[in-house]
Amino acid sequence: MIINGKNQRALWYENNILNIIDQRKLPYKIDIYKARTVKEVEYAIKEMVIRGAPSIGATAVYGMVLGKNDIEKTSNQLKKTRPTANDLFYAINYMKNEYDKDKNLLISANEYVENIIKTCRKIGEIGEKIIGHNMNILTHCNAGALATVDYGTALSPIRFANNKGKKINVYVDETRPRCQGLLTSWELKNEGIPYQLIVDNAAGYYMKNGEIDIAIVGADRIAKNGDFANKIGTYEKAVLAKENNIPFYVAAPFSTFDKNIKTGEEIIIEERDRNEIIQINGKKIMPNWIKTKNPAFDVTPKEYVSGYITEKGIIQY
Amino acid sequence: MIINGKNQRALWYENNILNIIDQRKLPYKIDIYKARTVKEVEYAIKEMVIRGAPSIGATAVYGMVLGKNDIEKTSNQLKKTRPTANDLFYAINYMKNEYDKDKNLLISANEYVENIIKTCRKIGEIGEKIIGHNMNILTHCNAGALATVDYGTALSPIRFANNKGKKINVYVDETRPRCQGLLTSWELKNEGIPYQLIVDNAAGYYMKNGEIDIAIVGADRIAKNGDFANKIGTYEKAVLAKENNIPFYVAAPFSTFDKNIKTGEEIIIEERDRNEIIQINGKKIMPNWIKTKNPAFDVTPKEYVSGYITEKGIIQY
Repeated sequence: MIINGKNQRALWYENNILNIIDQRKLPYKIDIYKARTVKEVEYAIKEMVIRGAPSIGATAVYGMVLGKNDIEKTSNQLKKTRPTANDLFYAINYMKNEYDKDKNLLISANEYVENIIKTCRKIGEIGEKIIGHNMNILTHCNAGALATVDYGTALSPIRFANNKGKKINVYVDETRPRCQGLLTSWELKNEGIPYQLIVDNAAGYYMKNGEIDIAIVGADRIAKNGDFANKIGTYEKAVLAKENNIPFYVAAPFSTFDKNIKTGEEIIIEERDRNEIIQINGKKIMPNWIKTKNPAFDVTPKEYVSGYITEKGIIQY
Repeated sequence: MIINGKNQRALWYENNILNIIDQRKLPYKIDIYKARTVKEVEYAIKEMVIRGAPSIGATAVYGMVLGKNDIEKTSNQLKKTRPTANDLFYAINYMKNEYDKDKNLLISANEYVENIIKTCRKIGEIGEKIIGHNMNILTHCNAGALATVDYGTALSPIRFANNKGKKINVYVDETRPRCQGLLTSWELKNEGIPYQLIVDNAAGYYMKNGEIDIAIVGADRIAKNGDFANKIGTYEKAVLAKENNIPFYVAAPFSTFDKNIKTGEEIIIEERDRNEIIQINGKKIMPNWIKTKNPAFDVTPKEYVSGYITEKGIIQY
């Protein structure tokens, strides 16, 4: 992704240190979080220094490198960080296999990450074709380069469409509670792609008014039947897209597909801290007495999905 | 409504002063805004010191009292404050009529406001019947006593159900950008009614999970055919309710029905300042460079409405 005119990645490993652009500080400040231990990797995933299913997977593979002296313990530690994203478990299992095969773990981790990037590039090239000239595109949360090391999943087709010279405009859902719409806006601004941030409540309004032509979102886990978990609010936008006959696409690599679960009902939904609601970026926006509930993800049934943009093509269920 | 154990109203007129509980300061501080001139009334409506269609109407009638020396000018000034709520225009026209009939305008204004309160009481008594024991109710924005001088529209049936001893629980949408869910939470807390504030993205999640039995919202303007304007996001919740077979009710007095417009397409949607998105309660939550769009209302077609709870009974179209 382009940051200050320079190509950069969401994370990189160098001299036994995992460097992560701290997403908690964005878009205000580009701060590099340095993880030298498994504990620091654990913290980065749990506290959302890094987020987005593929980026979590990439973080985990380097966590396994840092914790290779006790691979079983490291694996168990990292698996407990966040429950919903499939890539986390996929990445850990991949590294355990490599370990069993006596591979050089750093090489394996680097290969894993290069593969994510290649995959996202491919998703962009394939997905770009469904974006027409003058299209208004809705996206939810941040399924950009920050979430996937580079390119993004949902944002990759948007980048490629823009690079091809297609005139597009992106409606970016704010995505409360954590406002990842800010991250998406920041990425789009850096690339010079026109966008407007809207509150999550306004997506339906623009759909109904015919101002949105297509919706593209990412995914954290996709069940065997096509049901998928993604950031809270994704289900709402999918229902609204269907109601307004707007194509609704999920962009995700194969590592997000979980063959061990049949339907979305088996996906564990993480309930996160209430501080995510009553604070934004450390600023208190609600009084302490307020009672809250804070599910971090929801499950969208496959019926709402027009297609899954993967590195191997667009899949339909 | 009960505030600190005492019965109070959202606004009252005394000694030529219109006193308004300043909703911009709630729920942190109970501050009384004092309007002594039409200009101060204008400000109160425009800047949302007071909000909610019936409360705006009540504010306007006292504005007409304060500006009775030039009723035409006052009427034109007040009509320009906010475009969407029907009650504003209804109230101004009512007062102009009373003026033409040579009535004592203060008495007329008081009658108008007492009538709103009686109407909301009635809406509560009628609407209470559709709320069953152990029901989970979703509401959007604040259609409570703050929005209607007393009782509320959507919240009035909830108050009456609670007073009757029905065990209920209310899911309160945060309602970005202005987070009026905080006002609703504050009212419910004051009445001892169980509630949880959720981000707007989570309403669909709870609907799909079967945790919401009924949705009740207010309205700012209802067209002849039943289409209605309400706070941005209402349309989203209505579509989601339909998709999940959840009854979706609109609670509104007859003053909100606009017989001059045939369908919702004729309703003017107010586009408000972007500071509503990038700040919450004066606290900056987004950088200045962020591009935004901020429609304040949306229109929900009549097809999504199970019934309109009015002071004259529940109406179906």
